[in-house]
Amino acid sequence: MTHATIPPLNPPERLLMGPGPSNPDPRVLESLGRTLVGHLDPYFVELMDQTMGGLRDVFGTRNHHTLPISATGSGGLEAIIMNVLEPGDGAVVCVIGHFGQRLAELAARAGADVRVVEAAPGQIVDAAEVDRLLEAKPAKLVAFVHVETTTGACQPIEPMVAAAHKHGALVMMDCVTSLGGMPIDIDALGVDAAGSCTQKCLGAPPGLAPITVGPRAMAKVKARKQKPHTWYFDFQLLFQYWGETGATKKRAFHHTAPISSIYGMHEAVRLSIDEGREARWARHQEGHEALVRGLDRLGLQLFTPATHRAPTINVISVPDGVDEAKVRGRLLDMGVEMGGGLGALAGKVWRVGVMGYNAEPERVTRFVDALEAALKAEGWRA
Amino acid sequence: MTHATIPPLNPPERLLMGPGPSNPDPRVLESLGRTLVGHLDPYFVELMDQTMGGLRDVFGTRNHHTLPISATGSGGLEAIIMNVLEPGDGAVVCVIGHFGQRLAELAARAGADVRVVEAAPGQIVDAAEVDRLLEAKPAKLVAFVHVETTTGACQPIEPMVAAAHKHGALVMMDCVTSLGGMPIDIDALGVDAAGSCTQKCLGAPPGLAPITVGPRAMAKVKARKQKPHTWYFDFQLLFQYWGETGATKKRAFHHTAPISSIYGMHEAVRLSIDEGREARWARHQEGHEALVRGLDRLGLQLFTPATHRAPTINVISVPDGVDEAKVRGRLLDMGVEMGGGLGALAGKVWRVGVMGYNAEPERVTRFVDALEAALKAEGWRA
Repeated sequence: MTHATIPPLNPPERLLMGPGPSNPDPRVLESLGRTLVGHLDPYFVELMDQTMGGLRDVFGTRNHHTLPISATGSGGLEAIIMNVLEPGDGAVVCVIGHFGQRLAELAARAGADVRVVEAAPGQIVDAAEVDRLLEAKPAKLVAFVHVETTTGACQPIEPMVAAAHKHGALVMMDCVTSLGGMPIDIDALGVDAAGSCTQKCLGAPPGLAPITVGPRAMAKVKARKQKPHTWYFDFQLLFQYWGETGATKKRAFHHTAPISSIYGMHEAVRLSIDEGREARWARHQEGHEALVRGLDRLGLQLFTPATHRAPTINVISVPDGVDEAKVRGRLLDMGVEMGGGLGALAGKVWRVGVMGYNAEPERVTRFVDALEAALKAEGWRA
Repeated sequence: MTHATIPPLNPPERLLMGPGPSNPDPRVLESLGRTLVGHLDPYFVELMDQTMGGLRDVFGTRNHHTLPISATGSGGLEAIIMNVLEPGDGAVVCVIGHFGQRLAELAARAGADVRVVEAAPGQIVDAAEVDRLLEAKPAKLVAFVHVETTTGACQPIEPMVAAAHKHGALVMMDCVTSLGGMPIDIDALGVDAAGSCTQKCLGAPPGLAPITVGPRAMAKVKARKQKPHTWYFDFQLLFQYWGETGATKKRAFHHTAPISSIYGMHEAVRLSIDEGREARWARHQEGHEALVRGLDRLGLQLFTPATHRAPTINVISVPDGVDEAKVRGRLLDMGVEMGGGLGALAGKVWRVGVMGYNAEPERVTRFVDALEAALKAEGWRA
């Protein structure tokens, strides 16, 4: 036993311009500390319904099964995969970076027969390759990452859905780095299941995984031959707590919902709806363009080809002769966070998020100015 | 698409005397809204170490692998089971209520060969039965619930550990309804792995699952023949993020930690250490005794036999002729929550938590007075 004494909490102020978390709106932070109610309280049940309704707006869907999983973003993606796939099912996974590899790993752990379509860092996958693979052998699921957080590349959704549906496969999308910051309409696009996070473009702290599951995917979940290995993420149990469709809407206890985190997400979704989806997407685009102008001024290059660049995550090539970690360290000393590279791009890139509350010119400009000062302090001139 | 408008958050004030969540200390609620830092920020890494150190104190252990899982309490229990058990492994699970059944379900989903030792509601399991089962056929794991939230029964820890270790089995304990409110010393007791929650005796909102995993259990995790089905809860990946033992303490990214929730738990653990474990346990016992005196005065009986009653969850027999749901409804109208029965005890009992911030005479007395008023309003006289 340690009998440690713990110093009081004292987090420093940060401008969070890495790949996430971004700074939540102060109103979201304030909501977290509101008085707690029980997880079966009539008020909380109402709040659950409101949250589901709000998330449907954010996702652009009428899917009843649209709700926050009680885990961080990757937990929601695991939940979808563990519920949709059974051992021996076929899955085609598109890998354009670290988070695509993760989807493939999740599918393999669910016992699926996984085939991977890969593209080099910064590039995207050609949907025709997915088509060819499915032509050769069908699969139950095609999974892909919309915006790859490690490379900044944006995979177009429509061709992927078309290739999957042509061969009767479900299509699942990781929209962790795009939901709330880029045009997404789950129903119009025909995506069967999607999972995201709270701490990027939605502007809440990390801790929940908003997901949406459409009727075709739910039919597969209901037709499972065996229970999923997970009880915690089992959709059939979970959806009884969040309320199934039908006249009664009876709730069955599953696990105790993370009430304070749902307060925060409820507020974030409320602010997002008040702002309007299109206005919010436009604000992210404007923030991105302000960043690109700033980087141009500093003489820095984006790593990701302009043809498939996401506005929400901006991957910058580290100039020759610059110690990238030192620059990040100097920024942090100024109270500004940006991300380094992950996996194959470690040491080669910086990652700058234009997300949520931070996706607006003033905060982006503050970031660019800090980056300029850090680069100068490291003796770099373009 | 719904284009819902969402009303602003407006939770009512509640005295939460159900089986959890309990009301957090106001300082815990305040901590949730503190400014956000990144999940790889040096300050956050320090906070992770402090949180691990504090949790070791709460659990009474030197186990390095003591940390909050990024899920609610049942997610932490699933994590332990999915990491310790491989398909085909033997498990003996003690079932004295709903949450014991859940442990058996988790073990079955992990692919284990599960044998159950059961006791009637309110009763506990005789460790000699576990001994006999293990004598007949060994098992890798014995799992049991310390305090069964549905029946109020407390299963003695020592005989269970003795029976398991006599036959070389690991022993895992669900201490969701006891940690922080009753004497627990993981190391002195010899428990190999334990999981709890934040929203009961620890006095933080729901959302995290504190766990501790000892060296014997970790040896089994490291000796696995196949990866666990879960990536999100995979200890070997998770512990690389929280920092393994050794000189370097290098951190490898796994998932984005739920930062604000960890702020809250850090504060709850800090307050717990400041109060002192023994003082906190005594306060829960005093709160329980104040409740028992109050129930005596009202002429109400506890369902659980006095020989194995837990102070933290008090299960009351609903008197004949009383509509238990109406009484709970009247209490809620007064801003006071208590729990109904679950499973076999639905409709037959009420459940009253004496937990965390609420475990003190003044709040308990407020509850008893409200219960008296609700019973009178329903026309009941002892």
